[in-house]
Amino acid sequence: MADFELDPRLATDSVFVADGPLSQVRLMDDTRFPWIVLVPRVSGATEWIELDGNQQRLLLVEVNQAGQLIRAESGVEKLNIGALGNIVRQLHVHLVGRRTGDAAWPGPVWGSGHAERHTPEALAQQIARWRALLGQR
Amino acid sequence: MADFELDPRLATDSVFVADGPLSQVRLMDDTRFPWIVLVPRVSGATEWIELDGNQQRLLLVEVNQAGQLIRAESGVEKLNIGALGNIVRQLHVHLVGRRTGDAAWPGPVWGSGHAERHTPEALAQQIARWRALLGQR
Repeated sequence: MADFELDPRLATDSVFVADGPLSQVRLMDDTRFPWIVLVPRVSGATEWIELDGNQQRLLLVEVNQAGQLIRAESGVEKLNIGALGNIVRQLHVHLVGRRTGDAAWPGPVWGSGHAERHTPEALAQQIARWRALLGQR
Repeated sequence: MADFELDPRLATDSVFVADGPLSQVRLMDDTRFPWIVLVPRVSGATEWIELDGNQQRLLLVEVNQAGQLIRAESGVEKLNIGALGNIVRQLHVHLVGRRTGDAAWPGPVWGSGHAERHTPEALAQQIARWRALLGQR
């Protein structure tokens, strides 16, 4: 896994929060939704089902941890989990908190409208907040 | 799990193929994509992360099995996995085979256009084919 390299589009759209046992935990830079992306540090991986059994179990643990945190965000009624990769092939798993009436409701967030970026200050605050939530102060 | 009842919308949009260890394996009645839906037979379940550890492991086994089959369908380049539930709250996991230039490419299939239903004969053939693929002749 030494030659893991983050896809440039993921690098542009999201920011590093922490390293989990398998994945980079990244926050999408979009104020419309509480939205975490897990990017397994496995070079060349494109499909969840191509990970080996141990990697899949680690990813599932990470999905549970980040998913519970997203689910607990203010007003979130439903967790959306998605691994698509039609545009960015590098394996990444979306965890998105959905609220009735949010910018894409009730459709999927992917391909819906445009990201509303955080201000630099708000982004720094969010990163610090998610690190604390993940216990990685 | 005795009182498991399938959501009426899932019952309308998809057909029963087989019972896995945890879930009903259902084929979406939409000729645009090879598309399987797993519906855990767990009464009241809405979130993957609310399943207990054993149920999650069983679901992951089912995702791997059905996902490999979808991935092997003719022309499929990418597997999309999604658990959304914004409209139908009953927990269900989508496994969709995607091809460059398909009806929703490169966007998500959810909320994109309208299902193109199989003819009754074609649907019966597909059900038989998926049963055979799943080893449940």
